Amino acid sequence: MLSFESDYITGAHPKILEALTRTNLEQHPGYGADVYCERAKEKIRAACQAPNADVRFLVGGTQTNKIVIGTALAGYEGVIAAETGHVSLHEGGAIESTGHKVITLPHQNGKLNAATVEQYLLDFYADGAHEHMVAPGMVYISHPTEYGTLYTKDELTALSQLCRRYELPLFLDGARLGYGLMSLQTDVTLPDIAALCDVFYIGGTKVGALCGEAVVFTRNNTPKNFITLVKQHGALLAKGRLLGVQFDVLFTDGLYFSISRHAIDMAERLKELFARKGYRFYMESPTNQQFIILENAQMEALSQRVAFSFWEKYDETHTVVRFATSWSTSEEDLQALEAIL
Amino acid sequence: MLSFESDYITGAHPKILEALTRTNLEQHPGYGADVYCERAKEKIRAACQAPNADVRFLVGGTQTNKIVIGTALAGYEGVIAAETGHVSLHEGGAIESTGHKVITLPHQNGKLNAATVEQYLLDFYADGAHEHMVAPGMVYISHPTEYGTLYTKDELTALSQLCRRYELPLFLDGARLGYGLMSLQTDVTLPDIAALCDVFYIGGTKVGALCGEAVVFTRNNTPKNFITLVKQHGALLAKGRLLGVQFDVLFTDGLYFSISRHAIDMAERLKELFARKGYRFYMESPTNQQFIILENAQMEALSQRVAFSFWEKYDETHTVVRFATSWSTSEEDLQALEAIL
Amino acid sequence: MLSFESDYITGAHPKILEALTRTNLEQHPGYGADVYCERAKEKIRAACQAPNADVRFLVGGTQTNKIVIGTALAGYEGVIAAETGHVSLHEGGAIESTGHKVITLPHQNGKLNAATVEQYLLDFYADGAHEHMVAPGMVYISHPTEYGTLYTKDELTALSQLCRRYELPLFLDGARLGYGLMSLQTDVTLPDIAALCDVFYIGGTKVGALCGEAVVFTRNNTPKNFITLVKQHGALLAKGRLLGVQFDVLFTDGLYFSISRHAIDMAERLKELFARKGYRFYMESPTNQQFIILENAQMEALSQRVAFSFWEKYDETHTVVRFATSWSTSEEDLQALEAIL
Amino acid sequence: MLSFESDYITGAHPKILEALTRTNLEQHPGYGADVYCERAKEKIRAACQAPNADVRFLVGGTQTNKIVIGTALAGYEGVIAAETGHVSLHEGGAIESTGHKVITLPHQNGKLNAATVEQYLLDFYADGAHEHMVAPGMVYISHPTEYGTLYTKDELTALSQLCRRYELPLFLDGARLGYGLMSLQTDVTLPDIAALCDVFYIGGTKVGALCGEAVVFTRNNTPKNFITLVKQHGALLAKGRLLGVQFDVLFTDGLYFSISRHAIDMAERLKELFARKGYRFYMESPTNQQFIILENAQMEALSQRVAFSFWEKYDETHTVVRFATSWSTSEEDLQALEAIL
Repeated sequence: MLSFESDYITGAHPKILEALTRTNLEQHPGYGADVYCERAKEKIRAACQAPNADVRFLVGGTQTNKIVIGTALAGYEGVIAAETGHVSLHEGGAIESTGHKVITLPHQNGKLNAATVEQYLLDFYADGAHEHMVAPGMVYISHPTEYGTLYTKDELTALSQLCRRYELPLFLDGARLGYGLMSLQTDVTLPDIAALCDVFYIGGTKVGALCGEAVVFTRNNTPKNFITLVKQHGALLAKGRLLGVQFDVLFTDGLYFSISRHAIDMAERLKELFARKGYRFYMESPTNQQFIILENAQMEALSQRVAFSFWEKYDETHTVVRFATSWSTSEEDLQALEAIL
Repeated sequence: MLSFESDYITGAHPKILEALTRTNLEQHPGYGADVYCERAKEKIRAACQAPNADVRFLVGGTQTNKIVIGTALAGYEGVIAAETGHVSLHEGGAIESTGHKVITLPHQNGKLNAATVEQYLLDFYADGAHEHMVAPGMVYISHPTEYGTLYTKDELTALSQLCRRYELPLFLDGARLGYGLMSLQTDVTLPDIAALCDVFYIGGTKVGALCGEAVVFTRNNTPKNFITLVKQHGALLAKGRLLGVQFDVLFTDGLYFSISRHAIDMAERLKELFARKGYRFYMESPTNQQFIILENAQMEALSQRVAFSFWEKYDETHTVVRFATSWSTSEEDLQALEAIL
Repeated sequence: MLSFESDYITGAHPKILEALTRTNLEQHPGYGADVYCERAKEKIRAACQAPNADVRFLVGGTQTNKIVIGTALAGYEGVIAAETGHVSLHEGGAIESTGHKVITLPHQNGKLNAATVEQYLLDFYADGAHEHMVAPGMVYISHPTEYGTLYTKDELTALSQLCRRYELPLFLDGARLGYGLMSLQTDVTLPDIAALCDVFYIGGTKVGALCGEAVVFTRNNTPKNFITLVKQHGALLAKGRLLGVQFDVLFTDGLYFSISRHAIDMAERLKELFARKGYRFYMESPTNQQFIILENAQMEALSQRVAFSFWEKYDETHTVVRFATSWSTSEEDLQALEAIL
Repeated sequence: MLSFESDYITGAHPKILEALTRTNLEQHPGYGADVYCERAKEKIRAACQAPNADVRFLVGGTQTNKIVIGTALAGYEGVIAAETGHVSLHEGGAIESTGHKVITLPHQNGKLNAATVEQYLLDFYADGAHEHMVAPGMVYISHPTEYGTLYTKDELTALSQLCRRYELPLFLDGARLGYGLMSLQTDVTLPDIAALCDVFYIGGTKVGALCGEAVVFTRNNTPKNFITLVKQHGALLAKGRLLGVQFDVLFTDGLYFSISRHAIDMAERLKELFARKGYRFYMESPTNQQFIILENAQMEALSQRVAFSFWEKYDETHTVVRFATSWSTSEEDLQALEAIL
């Protein structure tokens, strides 16, 4: 059945499989000490225009959030996130399992507003009562957000400046970063992100890799003994080359960007198709995830012919669903969808 | 440079890469709900002669140990392991990071003796003082052990019976299980393990996969809400098919066993070679890891021409080193080693 | 300086000190195995009309919340609480430090409404997406609440029935339980609480003891190996008699109730006094904590002559402050306050 | 029945109860911000000859070990302790529950030898493999030890110098510190301990208080936001004065030392009594705990007439038991014991 269920319904970009196959019999040391990891790191630093950044490879998004946040916070600290943030809602309590609170603040279109964070910080530090409260220790945002929306460069800059004023590291979850960077409506570049964030990650799993996320520590702020911490979290791949080779391919000849752009092009056409057919959008999304409001019976009928994701209840008779494109979405997929709609 | 450093120096068995490539554009739901995971589970249940077993796929060994142990123990419990056990020494405190003590007992050739465990249990329950002590909640063994040694069927049966008498789950770490099952000197089969253990895993990463371990819960004892727990540990792959496809290939036409057997054949020749050249072995190992005692200057010289792993100090002038074979070790590798020795 | 800062500004009720002094040289076994703990448990069971309840003594409120919640929840579960709940806001992340999320829901006058909880549960179980979410595993309420308000018997019954339908233990934080039970406006008795809750505690620290809280497990639901768990949390007093003697005194001849009633009488007069003087109340409280809205300059002036607690900002020019009475509040204290106002 | 079961079988030194009673109606702020805590801290700093030390009060020994160790270690670190250490064996896994391993080393008469620790450190840092291992982050010793033995000043100095060389904080568990300081066979003073250790605690619970331990951070090394951390651990007493008053009394006119000396005098006579009657000692102890080897039938008979503690099995027919004296042991107790023996 035709599927727009997510951006991880297919395998990897063919060039990745080719590279894995081509290098398969080479003998390399384990745990990320191979030459492909080194090359990939170098290419990522270059793409970020951040020659001193430290790049580390992990396997998945929740794992990355858990490790980055869990190792950055002091015992008395929590992480600030939008109430819609992935770490708040959809990681099975991964952050809390490291002993830390997720301090949730209201969102605006899935985004955390600098003013919202500032008001929270002002209130927190306004009185002496905060000794019995979890202290803010990091700010977490996702870009694109869980609703596919994007921070503008101004918004990101405001958050970054606020964070630096309060000495709070700013962490950007880029599980779908490629789709954000290649959106037609963004003014934020990868070097911008590297300049404005203290740590962020470049998502591979949802942008053409079999698995893998590249964490970038931008300010000489990699946690001490990071390899031991990664090992302790059960996240250190013996065959680290699996990650190195994939990111080496993704950051060769701009592949990460071109496949992301393809997904955006497909998303724009999907958007246009739904709009033309008179569907309502839950939120205006400039990236590869599109959220449509369906009447429940209509949703039921449609789900017999095309796969998509249930997102959330809209009201008693309507539901928000998600259609996602990816590097592998094809013209044929869109034509088939049009026929169905 | 020629390398016998580990069994994870190369990529995956070529059939795995072929299958990943062949199925790459198929669209499948994420998080392990794909058809390849289902097929692989069915084949593993058949190979275990355990039609009711529950099979789950995780990414790596430490992650698997952490999740299996961390989700099995009650808050007041710890896990019994040999002092040489991987969970005791070489996982960066992964078990303790879940809040649980590793209760270490003396080993015999890397193995945990049933009598040793029984004496500990008798002492523990002998007096009332144990309310202030961590209670034993699981027994962890590795097979092959960290020194490449193997439990006999009698030894494993004795441990299993003891554990059942005390209602302690027996957990077998099979990171290198294939090499144990295909050893020339074992009387333990995969169905034996499934019958005697409460939970164990079939290692993929070190036996021909890019990554992946197949956990087998043999007695209707999968922890409740296991998917949420795996997600919380940051171990739930979005593209779960990556694990499903690999184990489907490994358990088709006995590939897991035949490539393990190849590694054993290579190890036997390597052993014979070292013995012929007059080298001393630290421990007699019937599996793919061989531990050699080298005089320190000799070690230094040898390390210029062939890669191997430092293991531990033997005495002031000697060191124990490890040479490992795998599915990808070739005749040429052995000939090159012979030339060097 | 005159103080209404809290209900823990003085020591213990004199009868407690007399009993500690009288029994001081008696030799008793440690860790709660003394005769006073036994007697106190028996008296508490009788007061609760719960002959089969299991009573345990702990030292303080946050410790009790942490242990009760942390030992009740499975790894994949969190605790539901009002967003104003003590465990949500004012325990320094104690719950999260046990690895569990506090799932916050909107409050009504500091209370958690059964309908609010039910809607959350319906939404949670409405779709399949909850495998990536923390599952609700317990409901936490405080009575009196953090704002001094009280559940009616109907409200408590509704919560209890909902919880039993969903097999969620209902936990009542009774840090100030005496003041709730003796309120002039309550229809909830201690036996009601024992019948409706799965676990609750009778606060001692804030109701006349030097320290100590009595946890009551009402349904044969004490966590297994509870002593080890308490020890592990660093909460097992060597001289457990300190808690036993205190609760024995508090539950002899109804002392717990009579001193609570005294505090309520004092609170009613304090309330009447503030009302008479034209002060505004932030919330109508029928217990020993009264929340007054002060203009900021007025607050500043008042704070020079009487101690009270800053509670929260009301608006740019006003602040909510708390005045509390206790067993030790005297006529003279009220007269002095009247003179100041 | 006559009891030598422990040093916490009676209440508090009478002067403590007098002071609690005398100050009972005074109104003081909570959470340790009262004047008695301040006075006690000042007196302890003076007794330690450590004017810049930071003193904090906690409730019990395991709680203190858990908080001091848990807040000092980085995520990748564990604490070194003797295999007989209280944190290793008898705290229900409290340290591991904070996520950290207890790295156990062999003991000598209950003590950790500097040479043993140094060899461990040399081995740990000898090779590159330690990235997969828990790093040593603190050294824990108890003085007196769990067997009543004492470090000499030379031994303590050697440990201290080693720790400073490796930048490992040295933490001394002084649950029974008074008995160590007043031993007839010690050359270690309280100022010595303050000079040689990075953090230690002065036990109250087992030396005449109802409860309470005074933690001394000697080198400007109190963990940041310590109050929040203590709150999070459920260890922040609302009526902090309970601890302040007690330590104020204990450190007024040398009471802590004089009552400890009394216990030592009683222990010396008890020792002499057992020796005279021909009993064997398990270990020579110069403090208030004496370990006697009893034939099992003899133990059984004796336990009918006097209470003592089972310690450990000696062999199939003998058991090690403990007799403890304290501030409250009387001449009459010893005479009664002599009559029984």
